[in-house]
Amino acid sequence: MGSLGMEKTVTGWAARDPSGILSPYSYTLRKTGPEDVVIKVLFCGVCHTDLHQTKNDLGMSKYPMVPGHEVVGEVVEVGAEVSKFEVADTVGAGVIVGCCRECAPCKADTEQYCNRKIWSYNDVYTDGKPTQGGFASAMVVDQKFLVKIPPGLAPEQAAPLLCAGLTVYSPMKHFGLMGTGLRAGVLGLGGVGHMGVKLAKAMGHHVTVISSSDKKRAEAVDHLGADAYLVSSDEAGMAAAADTLDYIIDTVPAFHPLEPYLSMLKLNGKLILLGVINQPLQFLTPMVMLGRKSITGSFIGSVQETQEMLEFCAAKGVTSMIELVKMDYANEAFKRLERNDVRYRFVIDVAGSNLHP
Amino acid sequence: MGSLGMEKTVTGWAARDPSGILSPYSYTLRKTGPEDVVIKVLFCGVCHTDLHQTKNDLGMSKYPMVPGHEVVGEVVEVGAEVSKFEVADTVGAGVIVGCCRECAPCKADTEQYCNRKIWSYNDVYTDGKPTQGGFASAMVVDQKFLVKIPPGLAPEQAAPLLCAGLTVYSPMKHFGLMGTGLRAGVLGLGGVGHMGVKLAKAMGHHVTVISSSDKKRAEAVDHLGADAYLVSSDEAGMAAAADTLDYIIDTVPAFHPLEPYLSMLKLNGKLILLGVINQPLQFLTPMVMLGRKSITGSFIGSVQETQEMLEFCAAKGVTSMIELVKMDYANEAFKRLERNDVRYRFVIDVAGSNLHP
Repeated sequence: MGSLGMEKTVTGWAARDPSGILSPYSYTLRKTGPEDVVIKVLFCGVCHTDLHQTKNDLGMSKYPMVPGHEVVGEVVEVGAEVSKFEVADTVGAGVIVGCCRECAPCKADTEQYCNRKIWSYNDVYTDGKPTQGGFASAMVVDQKFLVKIPPGLAPEQAAPLLCAGLTVYSPMKHFGLMGTGLRAGVLGLGGVGHMGVKLAKAMGHHVTVISSSDKKRAEAVDHLGADAYLVSSDEAGMAAAADTLDYIIDTVPAFHPLEPYLSMLKLNGKLILLGVINQPLQFLTPMVMLGRKSITGSFIGSVQETQEMLEFCAAKGVTSMIELVKMDYANEAFKRLERNDVRYRFVIDVAGSNLHP
Repeated sequence: MGSLGMEKTVTGWAARDPSGILSPYSYTLRKTGPEDVVIKVLFCGVCHTDLHQTKNDLGMSKYPMVPGHEVVGEVVEVGAEVSKFEVADTVGAGVIVGCCRECAPCKADTEQYCNRKIWSYNDVYTDGKPTQGGFASAMVVDQKFLVKIPPGLAPEQAAPLLCAGLTVYSPMKHFGLMGTGLRAGVLGLGGVGHMGVKLAKAMGHHVTVISSSDKKRAEAVDHLGADAYLVSSDEAGMAAAADTLDYIIDTVPAFHPLEPYLSMLKLNGKLILLGVINQPLQFLTPMVMLGRKSITGSFIGSVQETQEMLEFCAAKGVTSMIELVKMDYANEAFKRLERNDVRYRFVIDVAGSNLHP
């Protein structure tokens, strides 16, 4: 890290324009405020959102942009009023680094739904400076938005839990789906979907992976531990599975019909949408009414849920399946992620990378 | 009623074909089984479904068909094993008169979701005979499917509660929306919608009626007691109401956009669809994800909930707003119902009608 002065200069890998190509970029961190924690970044997961943001797919990107919101780091400095963390702690930072602390969602510890939340990157912090993410040597984060990585959880394994894992855990917790014996469906086996299988299995659920093709059967069943695998075009298989699932984690990020999946839900079953889709999805009202089914969704999770989820994973031995790469592979990793060629999450070994190649 | 022999002959008003025109029709009731209750029909509400069924709008009508599933009657005979009711009790029968008693929904006292439920009319009973509804002098109903009309609830007022009232009460109960202080929206001021306003007010909720025009403002606010009235095309008003509602009871029976209403929901808010709509409804996934909102629906309610709802209404003084008519007005009532010209439910004074005009 070098010496930690008042305004630390750090190096991150930033996108400069909508090509999304990352290259080294130097910038200063804000000085450590009383509630701030300075972390040396150890590992950072690569989320699909990073790809969208660096390429300006959502039309709201500001450059230079250092992506990364699945950050595991080591505490190297704490502000005078920091009580939650000490130097040398292993900590995690996620998608959000600020919130208004006054609105109903903030007061209910659901700050991920605050309308004035501050994103880890591609946003503006309270001091007026751009926020920059975890593809960098260090970050300054308010203690409220950091969690402890529990002992027993490898830091590189923990990184994808901070967004992908949390995105699945939070709705399971909120919608009362943590009891044993439930029957789950998982649509889409990407970064979030694979955590869906692993978390649901760790909760003692029977997990069916539903896919448009047979290609991922062995992976789902043999590697991730799914109990069943259904191809959505298999009419007999789908019909036999009608009315059998308590919930479905739907991570498909593109238009898809909902009827086949609503049919698979039991009475009171929940279809939990986790993919941002630009095109409207459709359903017929009797499909939800006759079975009191819910079409719902969820957005990451709270800091409190993040801590709980990490402890759950540590206790149950839940890990993510990752491909660990160095920073100079980041551009290649983005290309492969774009064609879904990763099983299931790239994690960048930031501390082990030469950031000035 | 005449003498009650083993196979009682009764007169109902039946539709004979998809014209839906009702006329007197004689048929026999099954003999009173050990669990059966014979009721003399006093009053019967007229539901929109009656209109659809008599006109074969759903393509599954069988004629002759005696409609009516909001039935209040007086017990005139009980089977040997009937324990819940005695002769002279005032009782109610609703949409369902049979179920399998073995499936998960039946075992959870949610028999309205049983796949083998038997409808009050236009269905076939376990003895192979067609079921016929409450537009008739008498019915035989298994005691399991009857409820007691509590003292203090006028029988003609109680009739619409058995379907319209229950349809609103059941999801409010199931989704935990019975506490005081919640903020409700009601879309559509028909038979079900008006009960939505009344029940939500009785639970101590702040109720906003949302309508496509200003026409029903006085009715909603002055007659039904709604706290606010919003016209959906009033952009400023709708924007000001964003993020304010805990739930919306949506009774609109035709295609409508969901975005304006999803926007009105708070974090964790619920859009409860109660209208069967033939055309698919649409939504964008971020509209549910960013606020963990649910699009859900519900179908009538259980016998147990019916009894609870009647007791709630008796205790809180909730009544339906009805237009009481004789049987010879039924065809005219259907015509007026078709053009929504009723405030808010027709109830037929069956016992006070000449069924053989």
